[in-house]
Amino acid sequence: MDEITRKGPAHRKAQPGYRWDGVELRPYKEDERALFRSITRQVLFSDPDMHGELRYFDVAPGGFSTLERHEHMHAVVILRGHGQCLVGHEVKEIAPHDLVTVPPWTWHQFRAAADAPLGFLCLVNAARDKPQLPTEADLAELKAQPQVAEFLRGMSE
Amino acid sequence: MDEITRKGPAHRKAQPGYRWDGVELRPYKEDERALFRSITRQVLFSDPDMHGELRYFDVAPGGFSTLERHEHMHAVVILRGHGQCLVGHEVKEIAPHDLVTVPPWTWHQFRAAADAPLGFLCLVNAARDKPQLPTEADLAELKAQPQVAEFLRGMSE
Repeated sequence: MDEITRKGPAHRKAQPGYRWDGVELRPYKEDERALFRSITRQVLFSDPDMHGELRYFDVAPGGFSTLERHEHMHAVVILRGHGQCLVGHEVKEIAPHDLVTVPPWTWHQFRAAADAPLGFLCLVNAARDKPQLPTEADLAELKAQPQVAEFLRGMSE
Repeated sequence: MDEITRKGPAHRKAQPGYRWDGVELRPYKEDERALFRSITRQVLFSDPDMHGELRYFDVAPGGFSTLERHEHMHAVVILRGHGQCLVGHEVKEIAPHDLVTVPPWTWHQFRAAADAPLGFLCLVNAARDKPQLPTEADLAELKAQPQVAEFLRGMSE
C-alpha cells in the first residue's frame, strides 16, 4: 500500500549511473553559441510546498555547464568525479562533497576534468529569474585574467 | 584574492568524515524523552537570498532522528551508509543516493543500521514551522502496524 499519492512515492531508489526511479533525464537547455557541452539535468525535488528545488547535473568528461549569471543563488554539492568551477573570477578544483556557493549576479561555470565526469546537486529557489549569457565584452573582461582565460579554453571558439 | 566576501567563501572543501571547512558540527536538538539517538547536524547552506536550506545529518550505527511531523516538507538525499526510514506508515530500506520525500504532516524518522552509519542531505524551506512530537496515543496508533512497531523498536522504552 502506498498511502502517499498526492506527492508521488515517498522513496525513490537510486539506479546505477546516477539515475533515479521516476526522474526524467532532461536535455540541457540549448543555445546557439555552444556555451555548454555534454551535460544532463534531472530534477530530483520540485513541489509546490517547497520553496527550493534540487536538481542533479551530470557533466561528461571534457564537458561544461553554461557560463551565465542571474539574480538567484546556487548552492552546489559535488557528488562524483572531479573538475573545476569558475565563480566570479575564481577558479577552484572540485571533488566529491565539496560545497560551492554562487552568489547573486556572479558569472559561473562547472567543468568536468578531461578524464572524469562531474556530477553535482544544485539547490535553487523555486521562483527565480532567467540566466543572463555573457556578451562578447563580458567574455573579454573575464578572459583578461589568465587563470579565467585558461579555464574557459574551448568555449565559443 | 577572495572577491566574494559578503557570502563567505565560494568553495568549501570536503574534509574526511563528512565534515566541511567552516561548517559547525551542531548537537542535535535535545528532548527529554530520548526520541532521537546519536545524530549530528551540519548546516551546509543557509542564506537570506535562498528560500531553502540544505543540512547534512549523520547518524551513528544504531542511532535515529526524532520521530516527528510538521507542515513543512523534507526532501532527502542519502549520502552514505544504509538504514531505514519511516514515512507515514511505510518503512523503506535506504542506501546512498536514494531520494526520500516527506510530505506535510507526515510522521517520519531516519534510522542507521546496527552496523553502519547513515548520512543524508535534507532540504527544507528556510521559513518553516516547528515539529510536533508524537503523543502516547500517536505512538500507539503508529505501533498498531507490526512493520512500524518493529521499526520503532528501542524508542521510548
